[in-house]
Amino acid sequence: MIFILKTIKPEIRILAIDDGPFEFKRKGKDILIGVIFRGGEFIDGVLKEEIEIDGNDAEEKIIKMTNETKHKGQLRVLMLDGITFAGFNIVNIKNISEKTKLPVIVINRKKPNFDYFLKALAKINKYEKGMECVKAAGDVYLTKVKPLKDKRYGKVFYQFYGCTNDIAEKIIKLSSTRAFIPEPVRVAHLIATGIVLGESLGRA
Amino acid sequence: MIFILKTIKPEIRILAIDDGPFEFKRKGKDILIGVIFRGGEFIDGVLKEEIEIDGNDAEEKIIKMTNETKHKGQLRVLMLDGITFAGFNIVNIKNISEKTKLPVIVINRKKPNFDYFLKALAKINKYEKGMECVKAAGDVYLTKVKPLKDKRYGKVFYQFYGCTNDIAEKIIKLSSTRAFIPEPVRVAHLIATGIVLGESLGRA
Repeated sequence: MIFILKTIKPEIRILAIDDGPFEFKRKGKDILIGVIFRGGEFIDGVLKEEIEIDGNDAEEKIIKMTNETKHKGQLRVLMLDGITFAGFNIVNIKNISEKTKLPVIVINRKKPNFDYFLKALAKINKYEKGMECVKAAGDVYLTKVKPLKDKRYGKVFYQFYGCTNDIAEKIIKLSSTRAFIPEPVRVAHLIATGIVLGESLGRA
Repeated sequence: MIFILKTIKPEIRILAIDDGPFEFKRKGKDILIGVIFRGGEFIDGVLKEEIEIDGNDAEEKIIKMTNETKHKGQLRVLMLDGITFAGFNIVNIKNISEKTKLPVIVINRKKPNFDYFLKALAKINKYEKGMECVKAAGDVYLTKVKPLKDKRYGKVFYQFYGCTNDIAEKIIKLSSTRAFIPEPVRVAHLIATGIVLGESLGRA
């Protein structure tokens, strides 16, 4: 299902979602932070949910967070920082897109290595779900972004569902205002790490 | 002690601090969120501490948060959302300024009513500390701010310690980019309410 975005305004409302850092192999809960941004400009709202480390509830919690926010009517696109949260709590972006009626763009800081990833999932009996989610996210594309006050370009790897590649690329470019990554994703990461660790990690 | 700010750049690093919402009379901990901003433009970092509801540790935690962040060397000014946090956990901005070597600006959304405030503090045996903190924060000033894309002006009430009124007013005006309140304070409030309640409250 493709959701037609007639025009892409500089202030297009984006909900970006990232997870908190967690110690590897730790059990329990992790946080999911959602940040509602106007393009790459400024924050309209902050959302929080909890998910199980290595669990199976990230997909459902992302759908819930998106559909229940008071900003839902204004939202035009979702951005996820990868397709796994809190370890191997993996999500199917086709399901998320269809249940929220919004296109979903996945931002990858590095080129994802799916072989390595699926092997790791196989060890915890999640190979099948992993393969389903990797297929749903589709091919990995590459684009270049240039922050407003930067002369250099940086690479962003991405996947998407529910829109055309042209639209996904335009939204990534217009929202990468401060660093080599869309600003909503950068800020979701700063908040999620700051809340869990007491001080945020990195600029991006 | 006055800290001379030779020039005020549009990207002056501001640390703004706000507390989470909490249910009145509840006991226990509340969160303190710090947001490091470049002027009124964008976020550089997010900090978190915990304080006691109606306790006496907000002042010391604000000093700790400010002095221990990796951004300390870049910080030029602190902004506090009022002089009380987590109920009646009240702070002396002269102490905070002297122990962090930074000017402190207090942002008040409404004109503070100190008589009412001191009466409430008297009921919990904090009149003396309250009076000390009210005196340290000094007179309440009023300025008008205009967000970048707004034609209207809005009022901001403020107090300060460690700089001149001229400097405090300039910093408030330049950082009020998105609403009738400095952007770092607006965002600290969105994060603190979003984290505690699951969804942030208000635009400011």
